[in-house]
Amino acid sequence: MSSLSEPHPQADDAGGYSLLSERSRWVLDPPEPPSIREQFLAFARKKSRSRADKVEEKTPLTSRACSLARGIFPVVKLGRSYGVGKFKRDLMAGLTLASLCIPQSIGYANLAKLDPEYGLYTNVVPPLIYALMGSSREIAIGPVAVVSLLLASMMERIVDSATDPGSYRKLVFTATFFAGMFQAIFGLFRLGFLVDFLSHAAIVGFMAGAAIVIGLQQLKGLLGFSHFTTRTDVVSVLGSSFKSLRHEWYPLNFVLGCTFLIFLLVARCIGRRNKNLFWLPAIAPLISVMLSTLLVFLSRADRHGVKIVKHIKKGLNPSSVSQLQFRSPHLGQAAKVGLISALVALTEAVAVGRSFASIKGYQIDGNKEMMALGFMNIVGSLTSCYVATGSFSRTAVNFSAGCETVVSNIVMAITVALSLLLFTRLLYYTPVAILASVILSALPGLIDVPEAIRIWRIDKLDFLACIGAFFGVLFGSVEIGLLIAVTISFGKVVLLSIRPGTEPLGMIPGTDVFCQTSQYPMAIKPHGTSLIRISSGLLCFANAQSIKQRIKTLLAEEDKAQSVILDMSSVTYVDTSGMAALEELHKELTSTGIEMGYAGVQWRVIHKLKVAKFVERVGRERFFLRVGEAIDAFRSPPSKAGEHIAALDCC
Amino acid sequence: MSSLSEPHPQADDAGGYSLLSERSRWVLDPPEPPSIREQFLAFARKKSRSRADKVEEKTPLTSRACSLARGIFPVVKLGRSYGVGKFKRDLMAGLTLASLCIPQSIGYANLAKLDPEYGLYTNVVPPLIYALMGSSREIAIGPVAVVSLLLASMMERIVDSATDPGSYRKLVFTATFFAGMFQAIFGLFRLGFLVDFLSHAAIVGFMAGAAIVIGLQQLKGLLGFSHFTTRTDVVSVLGSSFKSLRHEWYPLNFVLGCTFLIFLLVARCIGRRNKNLFWLPAIAPLISVMLSTLLVFLSRADRHGVKIVKHIKKGLNPSSVSQLQFRSPHLGQAAKVGLISALVALTEAVAVGRSFASIKGYQIDGNKEMMALGFMNIVGSLTSCYVATGSFSRTAVNFSAGCETVVSNIVMAITVALSLLLFTRLLYYTPVAILASVILSALPGLIDVPEAIRIWRIDKLDFLACIGAFFGVLFGSVEIGLLIAVTISFGKVVLLSIRPGTEPLGMIPGTDVFCQTSQYPMAIKPHGTSLIRISSGLLCFANAQSIKQRIKTLLAEEDKAQSVILDMSSVTYVDTSGMAALEELHKELTSTGIEMGYAGVQWRVIHKLKVAKFVERVGRERFFLRVGEAIDAFRSPPSKAGEHIAALDCC
Repeated sequence: MSSLSEPHPQADDAGGYSLLSERSRWVLDPPEPPSIREQFLAFARKKSRSRADKVEEKTPLTSRACSLARGIFPVVKLGRSYGVGKFKRDLMAGLTLASLCIPQSIGYANLAKLDPEYGLYTNVVPPLIYALMGSSREIAIGPVAVVSLLLASMMERIVDSATDPGSYRKLVFTATFFAGMFQAIFGLFRLGFLVDFLSHAAIVGFMAGAAIVIGLQQLKGLLGFSHFTTRTDVVSVLGSSFKSLRHEWYPLNFVLGCTFLIFLLVARCIGRRNKNLFWLPAIAPLISVMLSTLLVFLSRADRHGVKIVKHIKKGLNPSSVSQLQFRSPHLGQAAKVGLISALVALTEAVAVGRSFASIKGYQIDGNKEMMALGFMNIVGSLTSCYVATGSFSRTAVNFSAGCETVVSNIVMAITVALSLLLFTRLLYYTPVAILASVILSALPGLIDVPEAIRIWRIDKLDFLACIGAFFGVLFGSVEIGLLIAVTISFGKVVLLSIRPGTEPLGMIPGTDVFCQTSQYPMAIKPHGTSLIRISSGLLCFANAQSIKQRIKTLLAEEDKAQSVILDMSSVTYVDTSGMAALEELHKELTSTGIEMGYAGVQWRVIHKLKVAKFVERVGRERFFLRVGEAIDAFRSPPSKAGEHIAALDCC
Repeated sequence: MSSLSEPHPQADDAGGYSLLSERSRWVLDPPEPPSIREQFLAFARKKSRSRADKVEEKTPLTSRACSLARGIFPVVKLGRSYGVGKFKRDLMAGLTLASLCIPQSIGYANLAKLDPEYGLYTNVVPPLIYALMGSSREIAIGPVAVVSLLLASMMERIVDSATDPGSYRKLVFTATFFAGMFQAIFGLFRLGFLVDFLSHAAIVGFMAGAAIVIGLQQLKGLLGFSHFTTRTDVVSVLGSSFKSLRHEWYPLNFVLGCTFLIFLLVARCIGRRNKNLFWLPAIAPLISVMLSTLLVFLSRADRHGVKIVKHIKKGLNPSSVSQLQFRSPHLGQAAKVGLISALVALTEAVAVGRSFASIKGYQIDGNKEMMALGFMNIVGSLTSCYVATGSFSRTAVNFSAGCETVVSNIVMAITVALSLLLFTRLLYYTPVAILASVILSALPGLIDVPEAIRIWRIDKLDFLACIGAFFGVLFGSVEIGLLIAVTISFGKVVLLSIRPGTEPLGMIPGTDVFCQTSQYPMAIKPHGTSLIRISSGLLCFANAQSIKQRIKTLLAEEDKAQSVILDMSSVTYVDTSGMAALEELHKELTSTGIEMGYAGVQWRVIHKLKVAKFVERVGRERFFLRVGEAIDAFRSPPSKAGEHIAALDCC
């Protein structure tokens, strides 16, 4: 078959058996697998020193310092190739981003139950820090809807934002600090894989649930309610809304909000249809804000019940160092909120970074990225920002606007900073309903129904995680949704890993390959010998007895089997219970006169079987490199099989 | 190699490529794997109707009823072959058992904080019920130490046995009822595999911890304390003992207890050395009880501080139907205690049954066994018994005494019943210290140090579960020990399943088999092609990104690879995240000019890859039956490779 293969030694050759025995020796006497200690040391070594550092070991100190600086601040690499052309594109992208992010971040601050200026602050410092340290070129940094919701829903249970906004704000900054610390630690200790524990399917469900919850939160602004529930589940929010609807609401808010929402959605549709008009949905929010503000200012509609933003504090980010509360009784809870929002923020940022990097065909180092995000949030927490991350919708706008480098983030940050210095007074009359419609218009992007359908089609268990996260967020809380998603995902792993798998094998015609007869119905079962593959990767306490039982059932179905060959090539791990079951099976079968053979036993498994003296008790002659050889050995006339065994015994 | 194999079609043959393409079609177009619905239906069908029933489908109703009765009451099968010879041996074994179980069960009732007669009751009804329904021939039914400890330690936290023994007893019967219900339900719905979730290693650790805790509990009896802690952890028990030692203790108890403990241990030693004297350790407890009772009676040592059993209620098991508390506020807790003790009791009984059945070479049906145990505990809870199960130590005695059938259990039950009717008054002066020494002398059998060492040698993670259970029981509580054991065991499953596994492959000389080079250092790597096997069984959200990264690292180490062949024969499951990672990898590698091929993709995996349109996007020509064919396809001159692809495309 393969052009590499040498002529096959025939079993009938004089030297056949010695060759067979040599191969069995290869199976039985492999090099020692690395011990747990060695594995751990290798892991630690790999973690502590990345490949890039290794290459530069012999270079002089100064250039090593340079390369270290380049490693920490990828922005340094920019200088060489950056020109006017690139800057122009970054400038345009940055301005487009700013026009989108100013109304969005005021709305998100509202969602996070903070004053509007904190949303704007979060769009100044974190993007600048990220621009220095981050390696993604397209990502747009700032507050995002899901993290804002998460913070508000978890914080509200600790401190009430309405009665004690000062303590609430302090707690938010403390949680932001912890989020940054956790992110930086994950990056430093290369724990990037933690982000993967939220599976793709879970994220799809979680995001959709969060989008609906965020949308329902906007009812407050859209209908001009004064009182609203602090809980986030659908039942509470709808109940609270109906109650408020009966008492006090101002239809003008609703009319204004809906009008502009329709405008925003139409702009979004146009932008989708015509890729050249990508800027239309991006600047539509700012246009809406400007138009509606002008409208309210001219008509003084705020006197007729239209809720307005009112005062936004002028000036750049004030320091919030003194607001971090490390002696608060809520420190533990703040750390917990920090951890959860760190993970959710990372999940979004890493997903965003990865997908756009793969479009442009470059690599981002997840661990460095986490350090950048962590450091940015630590600095953010000291400068009145709350948790920032890479926003999916704004990153898409940034990408469509043709950004070249992180400079677009710097342009955006400077634009927002200028607005904070100069234009805050202009936003006094901005209606709250418009902010609600800006947020609402961004939500459809978070609900990915086609992807959910695709998940359903491909994997029902994945869909369960998706729908579990969705309903968890909707009817429980954001945390419960996350918990359900992680639990179902890992439950799935356990279920699939301990699922007992046994497959009868047959020979694929025209080859000497043995495959499962269920997948290859043309495979031929040999006469008198049962070939069974253990297809579970783990042969452990939770499935060993079932596997044993299944093998016996399979044998009972094939009445005339005189020998059984177990193909163990898929088994990567066996524990003491697994070995006990294997030994019981061996005893039970050999006591009824059935010969047993073991083929393709893996490295670590054979090592364990030897340590446990299973190989010794069962006999070395029962282990084969692969199924074909085992069949030959069992088929050959007794004298020759004896020879084979003798050849093994003498070595 | 195999005598089955036909001559290999050569790649250079005229028909070579069409054959190759046919095989690729086998990989790509297998029969549809069963859907989740079909799998569930098949599972349900299998569960609802055992193979034995199926065979008798066509037989008339009466004989079907007979066979059903035989199925539920295996004792019916006995009649035919049972003779005087067998009965003699059963009688001897039953009498030996009774002499052992009378002192033991009084002690265990003491451990369970119940009056002594309840231990005896538990040795009357449950063995009789089991004898009717159970299928193990050697198992000895009755109260056991670990379950008694478990009940007492969990119940004490709900109701105090010292101040309110009536409520405590009611709660114990209710918990026993629940335990029986759970066991019967497990048996009925064939959930026998649940017992396997406590791994062998965990049981070893748990039993050793429980033995030490039980031993420490005996300090109360051995030192004649009146006050003793109700907690079971080592620290509390030792603390309480030291406190009591300073205030009140009666050395005579200790002298008496230790003397007979030494006698019991010596008898045990002799029994172990000389298998013919197996009856010595079995009757030594009864001898000790008789001797010490006589001693106390004659010397009236109870007036000098020797604690005695005093009044044991005369008569057979009274009904306890009215004592079951289904409207108690503690119902939920009773159910929980019932569930936990049901599982622990089942674990011991199934382990006992399995190991002795395997020695005698017959089969026991775990599910029927559970139904028998469940029914026996339900009936027990109505007749003043607490949770009974198969005792390891007494089963061993039963086996050594030469029991033939469950009749030995019946003999034992009748003997105990007679004692309850006639001899309870004789036990008035039995010193409590003797009961403590009877329990203590049975404990060394529960601590299996050589097995723990063997586990350490074979599997460090298994040992972790073992030692975790041990210390959990010792320093926490029985439940904490169990919880730690289960958590570590399943944590191990998750860890091992999501461990990213990639292995470079090479060809074993003299064959066309490709194996991992780490296990087979003699394997030859082909030139220009990297062969990598994904050795993780699951390619899922938790490890897909790491596997992708590892494959890229492996490729970076082999600089000159022009093509990569991924051997996916070990992958049994892929989810949406796994597929996304695979597609990213494919894109990234092909964009750098590296050819990719996929070999040995399994049934369910290929089905998913097709549903997700991965196969369509990547190209059908990239899938191969096995590595060798992929190498040939990539090696062959472009024109021929084109032909191969064309052959696939046109089909």
